[in-house]
Formats: sequence, C-alpha cells, structure tokens
Amino acid sequence: MPAPHRPVEIRELSEPDLPPGGALMRTAFSEVCGTDVHLWHGRLSGVPYPIIPGHVTTGTLDAARGPMKDVLGATLREGDRLAFFDVHRTCGRCLACTVHRTPTRCPSRRVYGITDSADEGLFGGWAQKVYLEPGVIVAKLPEAVSFEAYIGGGCGLLTSVHIIDRAKISMGDTVVVQGAGAVGLSAAALARRAGAGQVIVIGAPKDRLALAVDMGADHVIDLDATTAEERLQRVRDLTGGLGGDVIIEAAGSARAFEEGVELVRNGGAYVIAGHYTNNGDSTINAHTHINRKHLDIRGCWGSEAAHFLKALRILERYEHEVPWRKIGARVYGLSQLNEALESAAKLEIPKALVDPWR
Amino acid sequence: MPAPHRPVEIRELSEPDLPPGGALMRTAFSEVCGTDVHLWHGRLSGVPYPIIPGHVTTGTLDAARGPMKDVLGATLREGDRLAFFDVHRTCGRCLACTVHRTPTRCPSRRVYGITDSADEGLFGGWAQKVYLEPGVIVAKLPEAVSFEAYIGGGCGLLTSVHIIDRAKISMGDTVVVQGAGAVGLSAAALARRAGAGQVIVIGAPKDRLALAVDMGADHVIDLDATTAEERLQRVRDLTGGLGGDVIIEAAGSARAFEEGVELVRNGGAYVIAGHYTNNGDSTINAHTHINRKHLDIRGCWGSEAAHFLKALRILERYEHEVPWRKIGARVYGLSQLNEALESAAKLEIPKALVDPWR
Amino acid sequence: MPAPHRPVEIRELSEPDLPPGGALMRTAFSEVCGTDVHLWHGRLSGVPYPIIPGHVTTGTLDAARGPMKDVLGATLREGDRLAFFDVHRTCGRCLACTVHRTPTRCPSRRVYGITDSADEGLFGGWAQKVYLEPGVIVAKLPEAVSFEAYIGGGCGLLTSVHIIDRAKISMGDTVVVQGAGAVGLSAAALARRAGAGQVIVIGAPKDRLALAVDMGADHVIDLDATTAEERLQRVRDLTGGLGGDVIIEAAGSARAFEEGVELVRNGGAYVIAGHYTNNGDSTINAHTHINRKHLDIRGCWGSEAAHFLKALRILERYEHEVPWRKIGARVYGLSQLNEALESAAKLEIPKALVDPWR
Amino acid sequence: MPAPHRPVEIRELSEPDLPPGGALMRTAFSEVCGTDVHLWHGRLSGVPYPIIPGHVTTGTLDAARGPMKDVLGATLREGDRLAFFDVHRTCGRCLACTVHRTPTRCPSRRVYGITDSADEGLFGGWAQKVYLEPGVIVAKLPEAVSFEAYIGGGCGLLTSVHIIDRAKISMGDTVVVQGAGAVGLSAAALARRAGAGQVIVIGAPKDRLALAVDMGADHVIDLDATTAEERLQRVRDLTGGLGGDVIIEAAGSARAFEEGVELVRNGGAYVIAGHYTNNGDSTINAHTHINRKHLDIRGCWGSEAAHFLKALRILERYEHEVPWRKIGARVYGLSQLNEALESAAKLEIPKALVDPWR
Repeated sequence: MPAPHRPVEIRELSEPDLPPGGALMRTAFSEVCGTDVHLWHGRLSGVPYPIIPGHVTTGTLDAARGPMKDVLGATLREGDRLAFFDVHRTCGRCLACTVHRTPTRCPSRRVYGITDSADEGLFGGWAQKVYLEPGVIVAKLPEAVSFEAYIGGGCGLLTSVHIIDRAKISMGDTVVVQGAGAVGLSAAALARRAGAGQVIVIGAPKDRLALAVDMGADHVIDLDATTAEERLQRVRDLTGGLGGDVIIEAAGSARAFEEGVELVRNGGAYVIAGHYTNNGDSTINAHTHINRKHLDIRGCWGSEAAHFLKALRILERYEHEVPWRKIGARVYGLSQLNEALESAAKLEIPKALVDPWR
Repeated sequence: MPAPHRPVEIRELSEPDLPPGGALMRTAFSEVCGTDVHLWHGRLSGVPYPIIPGHVTTGTLDAARGPMKDVLGATLREGDRLAFFDVHRTCGRCLACTVHRTPTRCPSRRVYGITDSADEGLFGGWAQKVYLEPGVIVAKLPEAVSFEAYIGGGCGLLTSVHIIDRAKISMGDTVVVQGAGAVGLSAAALARRAGAGQVIVIGAPKDRLALAVDMGADHVIDLDATTAEERLQRVRDLTGGLGGDVIIEAAGSARAFEEGVELVRNGGAYVIAGHYTNNGDSTINAHTHINRKHLDIRGCWGSEAAHFLKALRILERYEHEVPWRKIGARVYGLSQLNEALESAAKLEIPKALVDPWR
Repeated sequence: MPAPHRPVEIRELSEPDLPPGGALMRTAFSEVCGTDVHLWHGRLSGVPYPIIPGHVTTGTLDAARGPMKDVLGATLREGDRLAFFDVHRTCGRCLACTVHRTPTRCPSRRVYGITDSADEGLFGGWAQKVYLEPGVIVAKLPEAVSFEAYIGGGCGLLTSVHIIDRAKISMGDTVVVQGAGAVGLSAAALARRAGAGQVIVIGAPKDRLALAVDMGADHVIDLDATTAEERLQRVRDLTGGLGGDVIIEAAGSARAFEEGVELVRNGGAYVIAGHYTNNGDSTINAHTHINRKHLDIRGCWGSEAAHFLKALRILERYEHEVPWRKIGARVYGLSQLNEALESAAKLEIPKALVDPWR
Repeated sequence: MPAPHRPVEIRELSEPDLPPGGALMRTAFSEVCGTDVHLWHGRLSGVPYPIIPGHVTTGTLDAARGPMKDVLGATLREGDRLAFFDVHRTCGRCLACTVHRTPTRCPSRRVYGITDSADEGLFGGWAQKVYLEPGVIVAKLPEAVSFEAYIGGGCGLLTSVHIIDRAKISMGDTVVVQGAGAVGLSAAALARRAGAGQVIVIGAPKDRLALAVDMGADHVIDLDATTAEERLQRVRDLTGGLGGDVIIEAAGSARAFEEGVELVRNGGAYVIAGHYTNNGDSTINAHTHINRKHLDIRGCWGSEAAHFLKALRILERYEHEVPWRKIGARVYGLSQLNEALESAAKLEIPKALVDPWR
C-alpha cells in the first residue's frame, strides 16, 4: 500500500539478514479487516506509507537465527505452525506500561502492518514471508486451532478478549452487542461463553445476523429494519423493562454510541470498542445517561499480549463450536487485494483472508 | 415550600403520634443546598409538593417511643446529639439493591425534604422538629463532630464520600475537581486525604477558590479568568503533559463534562457527580475521548448508607484540619428562607445553614 | 429435630394466623443437605432446638394475606410455583450490610431451618407448609425451572453462585474444585459456564465424579485412588507446570485446605467455601504458600439475596444441559428422614429430596 | 559477600566497558536491610555468591554511553542525582508478566545485590560505583527528595507502596500493621496518607514504636510488653469490638500470621508481606479464620516498576512530614559492613545506610 487512496501494488523485497533472535515466518494467511480499509482511506494518522498491511497473520516458521522458543517455553522448529502478537516494542517501563497499567497506550508501541513502514522490512502479513524481529511475542498455534479459525477470529478476536476483560460480565447478565462485524461477532461469542444470560446482537446485513446466531447470540435485531425506538423497546422487552446489563459498542458509529447509553440499565456498564477511528461527535446527556444512571462507560483500546495469549486458549477450547472460520468469508491472493479492500469497504464481507501464495 | 416558584411559607404542623420505633428530633441545623434551589425552580420531577425542604439535618433526640439504639448499637437518650440518613425506605430486596448493588437506584427509595410530602408529616429539616420514622438510619453524632461541621459538609460531603469510593484514587494521583460548590469542596478535601499526589480545583468565584485551598487543594484555576484551552494547558503543565489521573465533575454544567474528557489522561477515570438535574446535552467524541483514551467514565448517583456512616468517621478524624463549617457560610431563620434561596441561587454562598428556632 | 443426636420426630403444628404481607407455602420439595447432618450432629452453635430443618424449599402459594407480589414485581396467585430466599431479617443498615458490604455477616440475619426455632412457627421445609413471614424474599419459579432442579441445586447452588462471584474467573482459566458434594458439583457446573478453560474436580466416590463430568468437569481426580502428591502432579501436568488459576475449596476438610495452597499457581486465587463448620486446624506456610505465591485467599460465607436471584436465572438458562436434578438423588417422605440423614452422613448421596406429603 | 556465614570482604573490581545504553552510577548511599541479613545467613535459595549486596541504591550519574534519558523522558547529565529500580530483566512477555499481571513472579526477573553475581560485574550498591545495564529503569531523583530519605525508605518503602496497592484501603478504615521494621514503618506512614481512619502498629522495641508514631501511627502496641490476647483486646477496643478492617503483616513471623487472622474483622483484608523468607509453618483454622470471616488474604511479593515510580512521587510529596531518613539510623563505610550486618541481625537498627566512599 504505497499511500492512501492508491491501489495496492505487488513489490518484490529481499529477505532480511536475520539478527540473533530474529526469525522469518512463511505466511499461511493474513487478513483484510476494517483497519485496512481505514488505512486505505487514509483515516489513521501517522502511518509511515508505504506499508505492507496485514497485522494479524499466521504461518509456519521458515528460518530462525539461533535456537528459538515460543513465549511459553516450547522449542520451535522449522515448519512449526506459528502465531505472533502484531503489537511489538511495547516498552514495559513507561508510566502507561507500569503505573497506569494501560500498555496499549505505551508511546513506543508499534503494530505490524499499521505503524511499521515497508521501508524497514517485511513488517506486514500481505507478504509471502514476515520478519519476526527479536522481542516479538511468538506462540505455537495449538494443534486444535486451524489457520482459518485463527485468522477468522484475527484482530477482532483479540479486541474481543480485551472487551470481555473490560466488560466484567456477571453470570446471567444480558449483554447487548452493537455491531455484527468481526469484532461484534467475536464479542458475542465470548460474552456467551463468559456467562451471559442472554446475548443480543444489533447489526446488519441479514447474513451477518445469521452468523451472529451461529456464534452464540440469543437474539438479533436488524439495524436496517428497525428504528432506534424499536430497538430500545425490544431490549427492554427482553430485560423486564430495565435495559441491558452490559452494552458492547463494536459498531464504530457516533449514532450507536448515542443509542447505547439508552440501551443500558441503571448501574450497568458500556464498553466502547468500535471507535478505532474518528466517526464524528456524539450528543449525550450527562444527567440522564451517566449521572442518574450511575453508569460505567469504559473505553477499550487495542489489545495486550495477555489478550493474544488468551485468544489462543479460547480458540483451542471453542473452535469446535464457534464458527470463527466463517468470519473470514473469502480468500484473496496478492493480486486480488484491491478487490478485497473494495468488498470490505462495502461491508459485503466482515473480513477477507489473504493467501499471498495464491 | 408549597409549590415551585412560590415563596416558602411558615406553617404550624402538629407533632405526630409516634409508632413503636419512631422518634422525634429537635432540629439544630438543616441546610439550603443546590438541590433546594432546584426544588424551588421545579427542576426535579415527581416531587410531591407541598414539601418541607431540608434533607440533611442534625439535632437532638426529643422523644422516642420505646428504647432506642443507634445504628452502631449505642443507646440513645433524650438530648443526645443525632444525625440521620435522609435516604430511607431503600428496600434491600430489589434487583437494584441486590444483584446490581446500586441501592441509590432502588425504586422504593425516598429522601427527606425531597420526595416526602409535607402532607405525610415532618419529613424535612426546615422545621423545628423532624419525624424519624421506624427504619430510618440514626447515628449518634461523635463527640468530636460539631453540628456546624456536620451540616457544613452536609449532603455534599455524603456525595463526596460516594465520589471517592467511585474514584479509586491511587497514591500519588493527580485529581482534578471541576466545581467549587459544596460537593466540589468536600471532594477536594477527601481526595487530598485519600492519597492524591496533587489536587487541582477548577471553579469560581475567588472566595470559593480560597476556601478550596483551605480544604486541601494544591492548585486552583479560576473559571472566570481562563479559557478552556488555558485550563487544559495548566493541567497538562502540572502533570508532565499527560492530564489528570482522576477528574471529578461536581459542576453540573454540560460544558464542564465536555471539558473534563479533555483534562483526563489516557487510561484515567472521570467521575460524573454534579449532574443531579438536567443541564442540557454535551457533545463528545467516542473515538478521541473514550475509545482511544481507554477512559473510564463513572456516573455517581446519590449516596448510600455506607457513605453516611463513613462521613461521620471522616468528620471525626479531620474536622480539626478541614474547615467544613466554613462551607455553611451563613445561618438563616425560618423567616429568612426565601432570602437564603435567593442567595444560593445566585451562588453568593456555597450553602446556607438553617436554624428553625432562630 | 428436637435436639442434636436425637431422632427426628413428626409433629403436628397449627397453621399460623397470617399477618399483612405474610403467606403460607405448600411444600413441594425441601432438601437434606450437609448442613442438616451438621445440625443433627450438633456441630453448629446457637441453634434454637427444636427446629424444623429444611432451609432451601420450594412449593406453591397456599394462602396470602393481602395482594402479593414477588421480588421482581410479578403478581402471585394461589397455586403459583414459588421459591424463597431462606436467609431473612438481614437488616440492610448495620456496618456489615452497608460499609463492609458483607450482608452474610449481618448480626440480625436468620436462616429458615437453621436459626429459627420450631417454637416460633413453620420456619423450615421439612413440613407440609412453610410460613413466609413479611419481608422474606419470594420469587416465582421461572417456567423453565422444575422443582426437582431447583432443589437439586438447592443451597449448594446458591453458595456456588456466591463462589463464582468471589472467584472472578477470567476466560480460559483452569479452575480446580476440591469436593464433589452438592457445592462442588454446582461450582464445577458454573465455573464451566463462566468461561473456565478447563475444570478439574477432585473428589470421591466414583459415582459423584461421574456426575461431576455430567455437570461440566473436564477432568476428575479420584481422592480415594490418589495421593496428594499425585494430585498435585496431575494438576501441574494439566497446566503446563504452573498449577490452577483458581482453586475452589468445597470439601470441608482441613487437609483439603493444606492441599489447595499447593495446587494454585503463583498469583492465583483460592476460594474457601466448604468450611461451614469447624473441621480442625490446618498448617500452612506464610512464605511458601501466600507471600511468595502472591496468592489471594478469599473466604466465602453463605449467600446473599443477589445469589438467590441469579440462581433462578442460571437454572432457567442451563437446566436443559446441567443435571442439577440428579444431585438430589432420592426422595424421602417425612417418616423416612432419619434414614435420609443416615445416608447423607455416610456420603451415600450428595443430597436427598424431602417430599413431606409422601 | 563471598558466601553465607562468611565475613564481607572488600575487593577491587575494574570498571566495565559500557555498551550502548549502559551507564555507571557513583554511589551516594546504599542500604543494609533485612534481606541482606538473610543473604548473609544463607536463607535465600539460588543466590549466586559471591555477590555485591545492596539492592536499593542511589547516587549520581558518573558516565553513560550515548545520550541518556530517564524513564519519564528527562535528559540525564553527568552529576545528576539518580535512583534506579533494582529489579531488572522482567520480561514483559511471559504468562506472569502478561496474563497473570504479576510481574514480580516473572521467571526472568533479576534483582541487584541479590540474584546478580559479583562475577558478572558491579551489580550491587555496596560498591563505589554501580553498573546500570541497558534496560534498567532509571529515574532522576526529584529535587525535593534527599538521598537520605530515598534510602531511608529504600526497599521497605517500595514494598509498602505495593502493600498499599494490595490493601485497597477505604477512607476511615482501621489499619493494623504487624511489625515496626523498615517495611512496617513505611506501611504505617502510607496507610495514614491513603485515608486510614486510624493506624495501629504492633512491634518492638520501644524506640521503633516511637518512630512509628512519628511516621503516622495513631496507636502502638508493644509486642514485648503484651500477650496476644491483650493485643487482640486492644484492637477490639479501638474498633468497637469488630477488629481491624485491614491488617498488614510486615513482621516475618509465623506467630504474627496466626495472630493476624484473629485481629481482622469479618469481611476484612489481610495483606501478607513480611514473609520474604521461610519462618516456619503457621496453624490456622479454615472455618473460623477464613470461611466464616469471609476474609480476604492477599500475598504481596516484591515490588513492580510502578511501585518504584510511585515511591518517588510519594517521597516528593511527603518527605517534609514523614521522617523516612530516620529509618536509616546510622551510616557505615565499606570497612564497617560486618558490624552493620551484626547490628541489623540483632534488630538494633531498622536499617543501616552504606556510604562506600567513607
């Protein structure tokens, strides 16, 4: 991706000389997610174009300099199936990392495929090989986890693990998820497995809502076929008139935020996780929506190494019953990436898979 | 107070026949607080006018039917100095009280001087005697606590104890308090004693800021003499460019809320406690202010019995060093209450004391 | 139950004159649980014998004085299926109820079938009718919940809801449950539904372990066939050598407590919920087990109204997949209660159901 | 320190060749704390003797290779007064660092003066210069903080910041500190500033108790002059019969742990922080002390970077009113270290300062 609003080009780059502790991964799959569309539209600031997009990526170990272990201590050999945490260089020493305990706000933090320039090397998954610099958190993909499910979950799954961490669901809670994209679908699946009494997904189009049910939603509300008042009424009907205990915003719309503060019950919690980019201002009322509601609103930015490691365990446990692989609806080769971006931008698919060898 | 926008009248009511467990308190002081101004302006819904205002009130035990103990088990005798929790009839059984753990959202909850009609009896402190119905939480005023400090703190202190509970201050935190009224002043005093590294109060007019310093503020910012940009810059200068760790909204202004989401650092917390009434909508950005900031916003409604009981201990410990009695700037008799309401409405005083025997 | 160590007698008591708000329930089922065995053995202090045992009980509304609503506001009619919270008279006003937020430590708290004397009336479920005094928390049994499942879960389920509250399970955690009695079985079922990555139950005899698997355990360890060292090794093998993230003690054995502090990983949590009576002292090492492990140990006493209300929702959601009704293995009539106590004392059954009309 | 039970020797070591990012600090003061006595007695396992003791140390920047910034971004110049976090090489990637959020249990973690061998270089403060390897967290000492106060607080202060983090003191709580050594004294000072209603210190000898009062204790109980029963009675007398809300164990005695579970109230918290070494087993009762008390016991191991950074702010704020410098009672030169260890072992002093240039 040479620059915003420009077609993605295929370039040939040389393989790096590996430093001690460095490695090269042969890509199996990367993804085209909403962030990639934002990158393409130039909606993120400070991106060092040209970049190789593809932040969450999986594959096999191609080469390593020196003996290599994964983050849990397992020895890695060539050909082993790998995942790695796309967020790297988090410093572990600054105020954000230590005192504030918000490593996703560390100023040194970098992300493969987003904040790493192609000029620096193979730092993105839309490439046949990815450079794993020393310090990147690498984990063996558990045997029970397929490449397709790992990437189908992808960054949306990692964000969802963080969301569930922030949501503090109590058994029996009614959880309302706003949004049926990759984040919303995974959040619904996890809320269901984390003890929610009922999971309601608000979104569109219809095929995504059908997938939401497969992921674990008990009820879905079609955004295209209802008014905000009807949705509020429906949530109240399902909650004895109270509203949801926990609302998860995974829609990335300023209107969704305004709607969410209505959907939540007194004393409930509202996790804001879909506003990765600026989608405009919202108008809310500090008295009605926050103070009098005794509401908790919790922003949720990015994901931490903890969420990456937990995601692997969650996939291992639940891949057999949660169709993460269906989120990654179609597979594209390198020459089809502009087409994939177009489809993602039109919301025709929640997510595309990228197979750079196709 | 016969109705909104009407002068307060002095009426003679008969003393009640006490049921078993009921008591009568001889009023020493009640207060005129911001809520009373709201009541007078008719800005609270569902108020059963006529009412006897005065929710937080203190005095001595006048009469009790049957042996009487305070909530901690101490025997009460006639003439003992008392405080009581103005919130009563919280049910302890509904979802709000039990599952949600938000007793201040209990539908059965009633408040002396606000939701109790004068037609039902002496349920308000702007009276020479107050009826303590069975079940009201009564506590002996500790010896070290004066009537004047208890009422100077008053409802603002109770709200502030709740605020501090919600704020989860960590030692060394920079706490910014928006508002220098009765709530803001007490919140600043408590934040200072709960381990804040520095307390910054934003407010006006100048005499309240001087009182804020006496209460424990390290820095004050004059709302009348600065722009929002200047205040933001000042807070950043005092925090190494980061913003405050915890912001406490005790201003009751829609603009203050918009300003607060700027003042707070990434990963910080923002407690909304000043919007007891509807002061209009605010415009904020879900991306910039909440999601990307990984912010916690916490509404804080009313106060619980726990906060009443803690307030007594806090007064006992800190009355000698915190000038709560100065918040209750002037004392008014029953015939001067319209004048007191006028002064409070003009913000000439943070709070007035009412001595119904004067 | 006239006194400890004495046979249970069948007595005829007159129906009470109902005060306003009082009601009478026709018993469908009550239970014989471990506590009843303790009562029979005289191991609880301050019990006002004679008592009518049977604390958790369910049935239909027989008569009510005045219109009656359940705790969620639903109108109750004669014949409606009911559950009620056996803990009553919690005051909602003392330090334990308010400041400490530990209502199960309220000094006024009373429990049907345990701390209420038969001399006071029908305060226990081993009777054809149970008196529901005003203030008792009554809830309609949801349609999807059978009497058998409600009592099969019984007090063990309520305790387990409290345990899960205290356990703060994070998705993917390994949860080890010590004990396969009524509490342990329900705790395993709930841990599984609250997001545990794997649930390991340690207990005996074999038929209970089989039931534990049906309830949701992934692995069971037979207490009778293993040494403590072998059990520790097994848990380590299942956790990459680390130990369990959360250990739940539901065994009521001083040895189990000593074993649990070994089973838990560094920085893990250990919930102690099985020591309802004094089972002797334990020897642990403050350095090895607590300080160096950075361990959290959390006592868990009784259950709150919140746990009763949540239990109903949990049963509603999960009765179709969790065999709570199998915990209540056999049904006894009033004339067979001594036999039931014998069987429970010998651990032949995790719990017996009582049908006083049989 | 060549080996356990052997006299400390003075050796001359060459200055290291600094790698990029490395630096050398000219020692102003280091300390002799209880851990050094344990090292001398060989009570810690896995120590790579010979070592240069002295983990918490302060001084001035002597030399740096390349431009150097402190952890908050301030430029460091030769002669600047420094502090550094003695814990280094915490990996930030393992389960302990990420998922478990317990970085003090990271297997890669090393500590100056304890787990670093003298064979590797100047990794300890009982030396005229200390090597600061790349990655060590270095901070400018704030202007308002003296060398003497920083070392007087020393490791005990850092541990205490962690303790206060774990203790979650609520305003007005009664905090009981067991132990009047360097940890206990700092914990008492911080508990007082974090909002405790009253702080009670149990310890000996008398001069330490006098210092405890200067640090902020409201009441002291002389361990040498009282029985456990008398101490329990005294704490009950000071708490309306309930016991302390929070107990902090900073005594390092198996008996203290047994006593602490008696001193704490129902639903209270007990932080175990004094058992840095194995002081033998304790006997407690899971029913009486934990389950029925609904108690929280929280182990507290070492300190995190967050606690180091907070300690600097706390010293800055409170050095003028808390006599940390008095904890470091005497200053010893390198030739007097065996004498210092003897004094510390006999508890003649809570802590000795080391000036290696004397």
